[in-house]
Amino acid sequence: MYAVEVRDHIMIAHSLPGEFFGPAQGLHGATFVVDVAFYREKLGPNDVVVDIGRAQDVLKAVLGAVNYRNLDELPQFKGKRTTTETLAHYVFDRMAEALRKSELGEESKGVSKIRVTLQESHVARAWYEGAVGA
Amino acid sequence: MYAVEVRDHIMIAHSLPGEFFGPAQGLHGATFVVDVAFYREKLGPNDVVVDIGRAQDVLKAVLGAVNYRNLDELPQFKGKRTTTETLAHYVFDRMAEALRKSELGEESKGVSKIRVTLQESHVARAWYEGAVGA
Amino acid sequence: MYAVEVRDHIMIAHSLPGEFFGPAQGLHGATFVVDVAFYREKLGPNDVVVDIGRAQDVLKAVLGAVNYRNLDELPQFKGKRTTTETLAHYVFDRMAEALRKSELGEESKGVSKIRVTLQESHVARAWYEGAVGA
Amino acid sequence: MYAVEVRDHIMIAHSLPGEFFGPAQGLHGATFVVDVAFYREKLGPNDVVVDIGRAQDVLKAVLGAVNYRNLDELPQFKGKRTTTETLAHYVFDRMAEALRKSELGEESKGVSKIRVTLQESHVARAWYEGAVGA
Amino acid sequence: MYAVEVRDHIMIAHSLPGEFFGPAQGLHGATFVVDVAFYREKLGPNDVVVDIGRAQDVLKAVLGAVNYRNLDELPQFKGKRTTTETLAHYVFDRMAEALRKSELGEESKGVSKIRVTLQESHVARAWYEGAVGA
Amino acid sequence: MYAVEVRDHIMIAHSLPGEFFGPAQGLHGATFVVDVAFYREKLGPNDVVVDIGRAQDVLKAVLGAVNYRNLDELPQFKGKRTTTETLAHYVFDRMAEALRKSELGEESKGVSKIRVTLQESHVARAWYEGAVGA
Repeated sequence: MYAVEVRDHIMIAHSLPGEFFGPAQGLHGATFVVDVAFYREKLGPNDVVVDIGRAQDVLKAVLGAVNYRNLDELPQFKGKRTTTETLAHYVFDRMAEALRKSELGEESKGVSKIRVTLQESHVARAWYEGAVGA
Repeated sequence: MYAVEVRDHIMIAHSLPGEFFGPAQGLHGATFVVDVAFYREKLGPNDVVVDIGRAQDVLKAVLGAVNYRNLDELPQFKGKRTTTETLAHYVFDRMAEALRKSELGEESKGVSKIRVTLQESHVARAWYEGAVGA
Repeated sequence: MYAVEVRDHIMIAHSLPGEFFGPAQGLHGATFVVDVAFYREKLGPNDVVVDIGRAQDVLKAVLGAVNYRNLDELPQFKGKRTTTETLAHYVFDRMAEALRKSELGEESKGVSKIRVTLQESHVARAWYEGAVGA
Repeated sequence: MYAVEVRDHIMIAHSLPGEFFGPAQGLHGATFVVDVAFYREKLGPNDVVVDIGRAQDVLKAVLGAVNYRNLDELPQFKGKRTTTETLAHYVFDRMAEALRKSELGEESKGVSKIRVTLQESHVARAWYEGAVGA
Repeated sequence: MYAVEVRDHIMIAHSLPGEFFGPAQGLHGATFVVDVAFYREKLGPNDVVVDIGRAQDVLKAVLGAVNYRNLDELPQFKGKRTTTETLAHYVFDRMAEALRKSELGEESKGVSKIRVTLQESHVARAWYEGAVGA
Repeated sequence: MYAVEVRDHIMIAHSLPGEFFGPAQGLHGATFVVDVAFYREKLGPNDVVVDIGRAQDVLKAVLGAVNYRNLDELPQFKGKRTTTETLAHYVFDRMAEALRKSELGEESKGVSKIRVTLQESHVARAWYEGAVGA
């Protein structure tokens, strides 16, 4: 199995409703350093997993929708908790959708799995990984 | 699959008996930067994998039993070699036990796998991962 | 010259008023990984720069006043821009004050300089350093 | 499952033929920080995954064949594109061969899988992982 | 003293003529992760050291002149050895020139010193720092 | 001012006598990741600060005297506390001595300052820096 992973980041505000979250119930924020890994069994005709430049561009576009924002005010998170875990899934869904729409180019057709990791500090991170259909 | 990973560290002395270990047969020591990853298929009611604060507290308690110690003198390692690999398994066992005893709280019930990584230097690390039963 | 540096972090929300700041004018947030370095010419009686445990405790207390908060609502930042640079100076002032009040203990009397570094992402950081009086 | 991972690096020149590669078609270069992870279900008689010293020596020997070279001129890459992905596979093949030839010693007999990661910058990396036969 | 530091990278080929350089005499290459730090005594009207976005843009433009290139063929390095040290000075000169030409904007007028660090691997780096005139 | 910095590491046992040190009074240990930076105003005839290969060899030799050892039993530390600070000074003294004895080669004659950093964990480090005479 091959994989390629690219990195970018976002700086967002949010709050996490529910007694469970203690001080994180209040409005605070985070830098999430975001790594997206693309997996495939065999390489494509150009001997790569994905076009790394396009992968970085698509990731930047996906993150651009939430970067420098207060997530509490964004419609896509209405009624949802923006935990690191659910944000990892959110980025996963957007990247998988971009793959299905061929936004990463022909080269990316064989990608079978994506993993999205959000590092929230030097001591904590979360990720979501799953298959991506044709 | 979701995962959350938290980090802490220990500073210990030990020796590794057996000609195989060369200079590490003598008493020496290590800082182990310890990462514990918790995996689960679906998030719990609070949209997290585990209560990250409790995970950090439990990890600190587990590591507290060996931190600042000479492992050669601890009863739990009597007759055992404290290689990085066996220490990773030791921390895994303690964390899995804490999960079974619900020390990480109700939120952690769906955790199905744990991975424990010990980084011993900027050029070497070891890990152990395995399923955790209900 | 000797130095000792310890690390902790905060997760905050804030906005940066002024056209100059572009998208950062809106409410967003950051994880700041905070390093505080203490400098002195000669070591004290215990052969250390500072009591590293107390340094970590004092840093945690200083950061506790802003951690998990929206800085726009805190009285100490009223009428001020909480850029990474000014936050580095804010932490510096609190740490220098703690030193003057002997909160780091007798051992820290010879400290002559402090540097506070705030890493806001994997590609950007800021710091402030200055002398600390007796 | 246990694993041990060791790190080394190479500094090479190469070009990537094909319009797909844009500016990377020209002769340029890279530092690849190389991590090799060895996996096995149960530890051997010395309670380790592999003899870490021998693993580092074998990795250094494998990398020595390409370190400080222009890959475009090396016979083993004739007619091949030396993308990060194919280089990860190349190092994997050499490490797997060394395992089969017992160059890592008796201790390494139970290794069932290898993963080779090449980090090409602070924002991009690739890896190849696969089973290694007896 | 305040400072702000931003990061980018280049991937280049080059050779280092002279017996002194051993295997590095041949054509090889490197990824240089480049950090540029800007220092100033007092902050400007916007409470920052420099406009961090413009600093990143100027750095990318400076690095763009050498990124993905074989330095042996570039006119600006004709008759010069492109050691990590001289490349750090090269980037310093270009950044200092950009500052003098106000390419980083009015906000950057108080910058008194620049440091340019090139990390060539996980175990080696070099830097050059110097004053920048008005 | 130019600088070049190289990295290696040691894994040692030791104890820190004195009530001040709390749990670190007992025998424990540490991995110290050691960075040595060499500073000079102007480059030598080969356009480098030092011969980086020789610098790494000399550092490895210096560290070899303490690596995999219990520092409490070494004659050079008899009656001394091996705090991270004093160990940084110890490595500094050995590196400065090697420079004076020309063990780093003719190329290193212009080095005017050395800084030795010991990272003891992901959250703490210490360093010592000083001038080195001709």
